[in-house]
Amino acid sequence: MTTTTEYRVTGMSCGHCESAVRAEVSEIAGVTGVEVSAATGLLSVTSDAPLDDAAVLAAVDEAGYEAARG
Amino acid sequence: MTTTTEYRVTGMSCGHCESAVRAEVSEIAGVTGVEVSAATGLLSVTSDAPLDDAAVLAAVDEAGYEAARG
Repeated sequence: MTTTTEYRVTGMSCGHCESAVRAEVSEIAGVTGVEVSAATGLLSVTSDAPLDDAAVLAAVDEAGYEAARG
Repeated sequence: MTTTTEYRVTGMSCGHCESAVRAEVSEIAGVTGVEVSAATGLLSVTSDAPLDDAAVLAAVDEAGYEAARG
């Protein structure tokens, strides 16, 4: 079953920032898709099982930004 | 003899942008140092011979931004 979870990310300013977030979040086990927009701050993560929010928040932190469940 | 040449770059918004410009400009033959700031848009290039402006402008363009001799 596919699950899509939304988060809000602050601090992204450009496409490089989007790429940094996408790269980190894509590494999480079970993640099958990542959409992220610096313009809106929205991060949408598709996974084949319910996501571990903490893992997503940690991945965004690793990329250098802050996120909250949207 | 060391030469430092100043340019103004538009469009950089974050540290990733600075890194992209720095990486491209650093590849130019003779370049010994690059300082770049997204906040001010200033790019300062140090070289061991007078710089070819066209090469610097092309490197910045390659990184995805626009520059002019400052």
